[in-house]
Amino acid sequence: MAEKMVEHITSMDEDFAQWYTDTVKKADLIDYSSIKGCMIFRPYGYALWENIRKLLDEKFRKTGHENVYMPMFIPESLLNKEKEHVEGFAPEVAWVTHGGSEPLAERICVRPTSETLFCEHYANIIRSYRDLPKLYNQWCSVVRWEKTTRPFLRNREFLWQEGHTMHETREEAIEETLQMLNIYADFHENELAIPVIRGEKTPSDKFAGAENTYCIEAMMHDGKALQAGTSHFFGDGFAKAFDITYTDRNNTLRHPFQTSWGVSTRMIGGIIMTHGDNNGLVLPPAVAPIQVVIIPVAAHKPGVIESARKLADELSGRFRVKLDDSDQSPGWKYAEYEMKGVPLRIEIGPRDIENGVCVTVSRHDRKKVTADLSDIADTVEKRLEEVRAGLYEKALANREARTYKCRTTDEIRKTLAGGKDGFIKAMWCGSEECEKKVKELCGVGSRCVPFEQEHISDVCVCCSKPAKLQVLWGIAY
Amino acid sequence: MAEKMVEHITSMDEDFAQWYTDTVKKADLIDYSSIKGCMIFRPYGYALWENIRKLLDEKFRKTGHENVYMPMFIPESLLNKEKEHVEGFAPEVAWVTHGGSEPLAERICVRPTSETLFCEHYANIIRSYRDLPKLYNQWCSVVRWEKTTRPFLRNREFLWQEGHTMHETREEAIEETLQMLNIYADFHENELAIPVIRGEKTPSDKFAGAENTYCIEAMMHDGKALQAGTSHFFGDGFAKAFDITYTDRNNTLRHPFQTSWGVSTRMIGGIIMTHGDNNGLVLPPAVAPIQVVIIPVAAHKPGVIESARKLADELSGRFRVKLDDSDQSPGWKYAEYEMKGVPLRIEIGPRDIENGVCVTVSRHDRKKVTADLSDIADTVEKRLEEVRAGLYEKALANREARTYKCRTTDEIRKTLAGGKDGFIKAMWCGSEECEKKVKELCGVGSRCVPFEQEHISDVCVCCSKPAKLQVLWGIAY
Repeated sequence: MAEKMVEHITSMDEDFAQWYTDTVKKADLIDYSSIKGCMIFRPYGYALWENIRKLLDEKFRKTGHENVYMPMFIPESLLNKEKEHVEGFAPEVAWVTHGGSEPLAERICVRPTSETLFCEHYANIIRSYRDLPKLYNQWCSVVRWEKTTRPFLRNREFLWQEGHTMHETREEAIEETLQMLNIYADFHENELAIPVIRGEKTPSDKFAGAENTYCIEAMMHDGKALQAGTSHFFGDGFAKAFDITYTDRNNTLRHPFQTSWGVSTRMIGGIIMTHGDNNGLVLPPAVAPIQVVIIPVAAHKPGVIESARKLADELSGRFRVKLDDSDQSPGWKYAEYEMKGVPLRIEIGPRDIENGVCVTVSRHDRKKVTADLSDIADTVEKRLEEVRAGLYEKALANREARTYKCRTTDEIRKTLAGGKDGFIKAMWCGSEECEKKVKELCGVGSRCVPFEQEHISDVCVCCSKPAKLQVLWGIAY
Repeated sequence: MAEKMVEHITSMDEDFAQWYTDTVKKADLIDYSSIKGCMIFRPYGYALWENIRKLLDEKFRKTGHENVYMPMFIPESLLNKEKEHVEGFAPEVAWVTHGGSEPLAERICVRPTSETLFCEHYANIIRSYRDLPKLYNQWCSVVRWEKTTRPFLRNREFLWQEGHTMHETREEAIEETLQMLNIYADFHENELAIPVIRGEKTPSDKFAGAENTYCIEAMMHDGKALQAGTSHFFGDGFAKAFDITYTDRNNTLRHPFQTSWGVSTRMIGGIIMTHGDNNGLVLPPAVAPIQVVIIPVAAHKPGVIESARKLADELSGRFRVKLDDSDQSPGWKYAEYEMKGVPLRIEIGPRDIENGVCVTVSRHDRKKVTADLSDIADTVEKRLEEVRAGLYEKALANREARTYKCRTTDEIRKTLAGGKDGFIKAMWCGSEECEKKVKELCGVGSRCVPFEQEHISDVCVCCSKPAKLQVLWGIAY
């Protein structure tokens, strides 16, 4: 089989951005609509999101969270209640000014995020410590009127989940914030096969209104960083602004402590840019809409289609299976399902049937394994786990190969010279000035202060004053 | 046990509208937001919607439909493409005019329905008969800026699903339209225990842009009608307006034929008003967030809590179960879960445990049945089916008792005198004038032309000219 069967996408080594755009379109994930930044999730792309949603939703429920649905509209006066928050979001909200032909008394925005709506509701329903914690989540779309847009990575409308919780104590709220970050991190590593770095955003990069913002950062194939999920601790700032109080166990009136956390369809961008290759998408088995595609070879020969159907029926109980018995050639089908990133392909032809076997081909490494039909379901399970592990290792190896320790801004510049993007580990004194200066001088921003700190040197990479924090720097999507 | 344990909701016989409002609030289904007509789905209300969605989604998939997600925004020029459609919807859309601080070049509306968006996409992706049928569905929220609003029944933002399909032939599209109407009807009757009448809307009541609109109509407890679902056949009108063409099997360029169909959170209003009573909600088991609530009696006595927990564990595999082991009194709990409409309550106390039994109480008729613990899961299944059947029969009996055959508008007026709402079966000549006049004279509108026609007389109820169509008339929510 020729090395490259799909000729119609740009090579990722030539033009990564164009490769990305080609892939999302040719793999039938999306189509564009007539409004910039508002895209159409086609069945294959939406099925991917539904699989992600289902897995995460189960994890949220297991940790005691309940789903709700808040209105999509926020009155301007409500958005204005928390000062930092409105400053962060007002510049990029879509404003509704008319209902039918009548102007509205007060303009309303389409939610860019729903802290304000949750706070208004919590003020209504929280009275006593018995009402706490409140552990709510919602799956919805939000709108941010961005100038520059890109499918999955930066859309004007995107799908996400946003958890909003209220707690009796500061400690409990911080624990929740970190618990959710860890759920996101584990989901990325175990289900999406994307290694992530857990850390805290520097103050300049916090969510508007938060005391602390925690994040997971992933490295894409091209060495750039993707912020893949965030979890915020709000203290009682919003509770004060929205007058949310509860009577505590000592009968004292107090403000509860708050968190919010979210991941979005951006994760799909992360999957594409972490695992994809020059033949298209490569999907991690846990979320792939089709986990196994069965392709009959020499389908016109007696018994082939029947055997392929039997195999499909047998596997369907345990896996998401597609049998392609259309009249396209096997070669065309191989290319098509490689483009769509199906993790495992099974080829079955007359000679295989005669020998009681079939051929399994894993998408990411094209490894061919002949497998007995007698225990094929167990083999498929093993092969899919190989894919998952293989994807993770490949992504980790890429990240490790592209992570550099630097002691000076000069070193950073030299390391990244010639457009070799990657993660830089370097010390930081904690001043926003130095953060800005590193960006100016080297083109990389602070991604986070990783939980797992490494000691690179005793002084700040920028000002050479004493520094205790190791920061992860990089260029972000 | 006292007949009426919950004193804090208005009696439905005194004031049905107030009873409804009390019920949706006290059963924790919703809360109001600060924007009129935009409500908050609380966890219990949203769980009800999630259960409905899951069941319907499975039925859609089994009939070959795929989920997609379209943008929430429609540019004004796109909305304007189909004349009747824009005339129907423009008066009630919410207009976005600004992104951040900048005015938009063209104003955009929040989707009131997505025919125009689907058409734009279909024009992009349909080329040949091989691309047909397209059977797409989406779950989302839509916005219609109504003047008068009411939770679930008429909201400015509401949740729904909208199916949009494209077909090679007129016949196939009509078949799809009716197939989906029947799926809605069967779901109402079998899962929601709501009897419905299947029929076609009169021309004056069609969806904006449709050739035919089919509907299911249900009778609420108060004798008023609820349009519970609609399915539209568009012919090729939109396809022409949006220039959607395909090459047919004879290599001729043609317009495909289109359908759309939808049900919404309105169904929850239907459940409440069909099955509810003076103690609150009554939920059909198929969609109830809690199907069985277990209430320990004399919970302080040794072994009671343990037995209740064991029972809960045993039932949890097959049913949605809640054990309430809080320190509230059993009486308070009975009232609470009656208000929430939990179909089956299990009481378990020391004497029951001694005898190896528990007491099952069905919500709708308060029938008590003592049941052996040894085969309790089977008993619960049987009891839940009794609830479903009981609810359906009760609703059907109400509808039959309140359905009247009339030959003249005078007869209609006399039948409904004194505010006794109900369904009127009467003949209609087919003129819009008579339809309007019946409304003026009798206060009832045409709900539909039922598929199952009855011959009431030979002449129109209004003009006495020959009439062949029997219309169902009523006052609608």
